[in-house]
Amino acid sequence: MNTEPWTERIREFAQERDWEQFHNPKNLAMALSVEVSELVEIFQWMPPEEAAAVMTGARAKDVRDEVADILTYLLRFADVTGIDLDAALTAKAEDNERRYTVARAKGSSAKAGH
Amino acid sequence: MNTEPWTERIREFAQERDWEQFHNPKNLAMALSVEVSELVEIFQWMPPEEAAAVMTGARAKDVRDEVADILTYLLRFADVTGIDLDAALTAKAEDNERRYTVARAKGSSAKAGH
Amino acid sequence: MNTEPWTERIREFAQERDWEQFHNPKNLAMALSVEVSELVEIFQWMPPEEAAAVMTGARAKDVRDEVADILTYLLRFADVTGIDLDAALTAKAEDNERRYTVARAKGSSAKAGH
Amino acid sequence: MNTEPWTERIREFAQERDWEQFHNPKNLAMALSVEVSELVEIFQWMPPEEAAAVMTGARAKDVRDEVADILTYLLRFADVTGIDLDAALTAKAEDNERRYTVARAKGSSAKAGH
Repeated sequence: MNTEPWTERIREFAQERDWEQFHNPKNLAMALSVEVSELVEIFQWMPPEEAAAVMTGARAKDVRDEVADILTYLLRFADVTGIDLDAALTAKAEDNERRYTVARAKGSSAKAGH
Repeated sequence: MNTEPWTERIREFAQERDWEQFHNPKNLAMALSVEVSELVEIFQWMPPEEAAAVMTGARAKDVRDEVADILTYLLRFADVTGIDLDAALTAKAEDNERRYTVARAKGSSAKAGH
Repeated sequence: MNTEPWTERIREFAQERDWEQFHNPKNLAMALSVEVSELVEIFQWMPPEEAAAVMTGARAKDVRDEVADILTYLLRFADVTGIDLDAALTAKAEDNERRYTVARAKGSSAKAGH
Repeated sequence: MNTEPWTERIREFAQERDWEQFHNPKNLAMALSVEVSELVEIFQWMPPEEAAAVMTGARAKDVRDEVADILTYLLRFADVTGIDLDAALTAKAEDNERRYTVARAKGSSAKAGH
């Protein structure tokens, strides 16, 4: 996926509705956390096996919709703050490759993040 | 930004470290919420003016790093669940354009979302 | 408020509905985060002045309901994990009083937490 | 546990440090969500069996500390907004008992909440 056309479309959507007054970084960070919680809510009571098979079950469309909502707000946040996503990911990936070397992190859940 | 090469790089990073065992949809949704909270934490005590100018202040790099972490987990989640991001955004954008018509939503904070 | 009768009532409510199978610590932590997000959602687009006056506005009952939901899951989590709330608060308060001495923390938003 | 003395102690702690300027409802809701995420973080990569036994493992003190932090901010939020916790819990419990009757909710994860 190419993010630029989406960033544009989401910006125009906000502009046409006069929502730029609400879309400051503090509010957008809150809105992003609310959207992620709607994804978490889908999984909260699911046993692990049911969660692993979520995309073949009744909640598959809900999962796709929440992922789209999260990405929408994330692109909006990056647009409002002027963050270059490629540069930000490159900096972070290089940092992670230094911190979590294969030798240190292999198979350890304490480090199963980025 | 083109997401595909990043999805690949993040997948390889997890495979090399044997982290696929931890990266199920339930755990990744939780990890995504934890990363978003690290972004929220930056803003929690900031007055609105300071939050609006965050990218010219001392926390700018932290904001970029958290956005990169969130996007990393979101791409990983979409990879593990097989979600096509373009298709998911298209479906959601069409839905939003129907629900939040300019006539109904203009300037209303009750609807300042997607 | 005395928490013990509430802990009992919430436990019986779960037992009668056969919900103990879902109420493990991992799921309850997720549910707690979902409830807190419902509180955050009320404030996400509010200007600070409107947020400060929330209890005299149209969302006052929603705020009370979300606080009740959060406290319900927090008491349930503490019950399931056997946490003594008085002891936990005492340990944390003593720790905070050591870390955030008045001399160091006064008026600083960097430390406006506990 | 009796909450009143804690509400007082937490209020004095904030007053002495001049933190009341930061403790408005919007900021406190954000801070509460950040604390809950620190609890979620403990569980994010844990297999269910390890999560169920968390209080006999190496993270037990961390869990107690996070629960104390969450309760601290929840009491602070209720103090600042003037919410009567007993009244809020009573209203919500009566509502839940009407909505989730034993006949409808028994054993159903779709309703394993309050």
